[in-house]
Amino acid sequence: MRHLITLTTDFGLGDAFVGVMKGVILGINPKVSIVDLSHQIPPQGVRQAAYLLLTAYPYFPPGTIHLVVVDPGVGSERRAIAMRAERAYFMAPDNGILSYVATKGTVEKLFSLTNPRYWLAPPSSTFHGRDIFASVAAHLSLGVALEDLGEEIQDMVRLPFPQPVLGPDDTIVGQILHIDRFGNLVTDIPQEMLKNRAQVTITLLGRTIHGLSSAYAAVREGELVTYIGSTELLEIAVRGGNAAQTLGAKVGDEVVIKGR
Amino acid sequence: MRHLITLTTDFGLGDAFVGVMKGVILGINPKVSIVDLSHQIPPQGVRQAAYLLLTAYPYFPPGTIHLVVVDPGVGSERRAIAMRAERAYFMAPDNGILSYVATKGTVEKLFSLTNPRYWLAPPSSTFHGRDIFASVAAHLSLGVALEDLGEEIQDMVRLPFPQPVLGPDDTIVGQILHIDRFGNLVTDIPQEMLKNRAQVTITLLGRTIHGLSSAYAAVREGELVTYIGSTELLEIAVRGGNAAQTLGAKVGDEVVIKGR
Amino acid sequence: MRHLITLTTDFGLGDAFVGVMKGVILGINPKVSIVDLSHQIPPQGVRQAAYLLLTAYPYFPPGTIHLVVVDPGVGSERRAIAMRAERAYFMAPDNGILSYVATKGTVEKLFSLTNPRYWLAPPSSTFHGRDIFASVAAHLSLGVALEDLGEEIQDMVRLPFPQPVLGPDDTIVGQILHIDRFGNLVTDIPQEMLKNRAQVTITLLGRTIHGLSSAYAAVREGELVTYIGSTELLEIAVRGGNAAQTLGAKVGDEVVIKGR
Repeated sequence: MRHLITLTTDFGLGDAFVGVMKGVILGINPKVSIVDLSHQIPPQGVRQAAYLLLTAYPYFPPGTIHLVVVDPGVGSERRAIAMRAERAYFMAPDNGILSYVATKGTVEKLFSLTNPRYWLAPPSSTFHGRDIFASVAAHLSLGVALEDLGEEIQDMVRLPFPQPVLGPDDTIVGQILHIDRFGNLVTDIPQEMLKNRAQVTITLLGRTIHGLSSAYAAVREGELVTYIGSTELLEIAVRGGNAAQTLGAKVGDEVVIKGR
Repeated sequence: MRHLITLTTDFGLGDAFVGVMKGVILGINPKVSIVDLSHQIPPQGVRQAAYLLLTAYPYFPPGTIHLVVVDPGVGSERRAIAMRAERAYFMAPDNGILSYVATKGTVEKLFSLTNPRYWLAPPSSTFHGRDIFASVAAHLSLGVALEDLGEEIQDMVRLPFPQPVLGPDDTIVGQILHIDRFGNLVTDIPQEMLKNRAQVTITLLGRTIHGLSSAYAAVREGELVTYIGSTELLEIAVRGGNAAQTLGAKVGDEVVIKGR
Repeated sequence: MRHLITLTTDFGLGDAFVGVMKGVILGINPKVSIVDLSHQIPPQGVRQAAYLLLTAYPYFPPGTIHLVVVDPGVGSERRAIAMRAERAYFMAPDNGILSYVATKGTVEKLFSLTNPRYWLAPPSSTFHGRDIFASVAAHLSLGVALEDLGEEIQDMVRLPFPQPVLGPDDTIVGQILHIDRFGNLVTDIPQEMLKNRAQVTITLLGRTIHGLSSAYAAVREGELVTYIGSTELLEIAVRGGNAAQTLGAKVGDEVVIKGR
């Protein structure tokens, strides 16, 4: 079943861009449900969209269509693509947005969305979210085959997923991948890398934290705490506070783990 | 009927937290409608969420499930609870969020959501909104009885609803409870307290206003106006302006009413 | 068919105003779909709402009901009105919000929403979005005739659509109508006015740009580019950047075209 479409864009909610995409979709398939993942991706933030999509898609039912429009190259020769994976469909400009998902999941097939029969005709040069993607996603949700929406392709633009480095003495050097609304710092260090380590110390921005906790509540209000977050990556927070502000942390800052 | 779930959180709309909760819900009950009340509750703003819920729930159809996730104690021993009231179901961490609603309405029964059969297993220690609440709310919307979702309990954490003080000479001393998007000041002084008073004066932050108006339009552009707002509490506004900015007002500031 | 209601307000997403309107609508018509156009219209920004509605409504299916609540005169004598047009219904306070749509499309009939049978009774003096508009729109979506919701009227408040001036030597003097999330500048100069696109020069804020491009990608990163935007108006952008910030531009700034 394909009764659900998610939307992720850098369009914000002040303009009507997102509403217009929904109008196009519901004009083609009035029965489909639409869920917003986020429209506050920073303008042209391809990596941020790739990360958000990776953390969100596993929680949607099989057959969900995930449409992502963060599209600095709109109007150029960049392709509009679709990906069929084990439990979902993905649609996006071919600029790397789908690479994190492709790294983790099973890609079955890739398509370039070249069949204008399923577009709003003629497409503008600045808003393919409306003129191509929304329309094509709606037709896909109605049951049109990806094979009809375009032609199969063999590869797409791929961005490397940030990966911590394993140094001497089993030191792990990672980085801050994302800062969430609460100022919690999500690192690129996965749970598996820490699995058999009993006595780790975590150092970032001159501060050292001893040991992983199982929850915020393991420390006192205002204290730093590290734990495996809801996306199975190491996170650093301040209980009842904002770690990003407290530490002056930003995406890309180095995080070092020692001890086994 | 339980075809509607509302969501209130402090998750913001930048991350995919809210979208993920919707994915979990629609994976379990594809037919349910989901309405956002607000996701911009200040981080860990339990009282703000309690107030917002109180003003919103009476306008939803009977049987609506109101899910509120503002959860500073996630991962600790705090309970996840559900409340059945006269015309609605409520679900939240047991931290006082439901107390304003409980003060005003008829609480029929309280439950602790302890049955892991209805959770996404195993729950993370930081995102019960996804792993427990969304999943349990979706099962409730499918018709599962609260009795099956957990065990009945006799009480929950309760926060006192702010209440104005009646002083000598019938003076009322209240406070600013909430400031809305327009900078209008919502006080804790209910319509009933003002019912038989013809000639009140309202004093706050050194300014005095004479008499209640029936609408913004009763005064000129730029002037202060007091009136009974849409939640049946006394409000103070600047017509065509922003009272909070004009007066430098903030939540908790004192408001004094004199006259009968 | 009238299975879709769009909402446009200046209510923001921090309070529950929008959620409450949805509760009222879904209590009356549980089957209707609701799409948000924007709730971030600047407080009392009637012209901004009029512009947004104009750019969005053509992309919705026939029979869609567009409800706009930007209502500085709430509680005064201003009317609540509905408009039936060629392919849509519109509902708003009578303050000019519907005038841009009326200028461009075919207005069939206008109504004043005076029948209290379809309101939530009794209406507050500050939140007609909840007490009148949401309720009436929901009944309209159920198939109630506009004739039953109120009485036919002959005119409404109209705001002139900003129109560029044609000067000597075919000079066009227009202005910035809207700045979008990306800092792109939307002017009031329509595609039809620009006959000879290759040889125009566009001057604003002391900068001159030669010739229209067909897409952002026609210039290098960081350069100014002009093109016909997705609403068929002339736009000015910085590729990969923010033109409003780069130029210090604001709504109303003059844009001069020579050599059309």
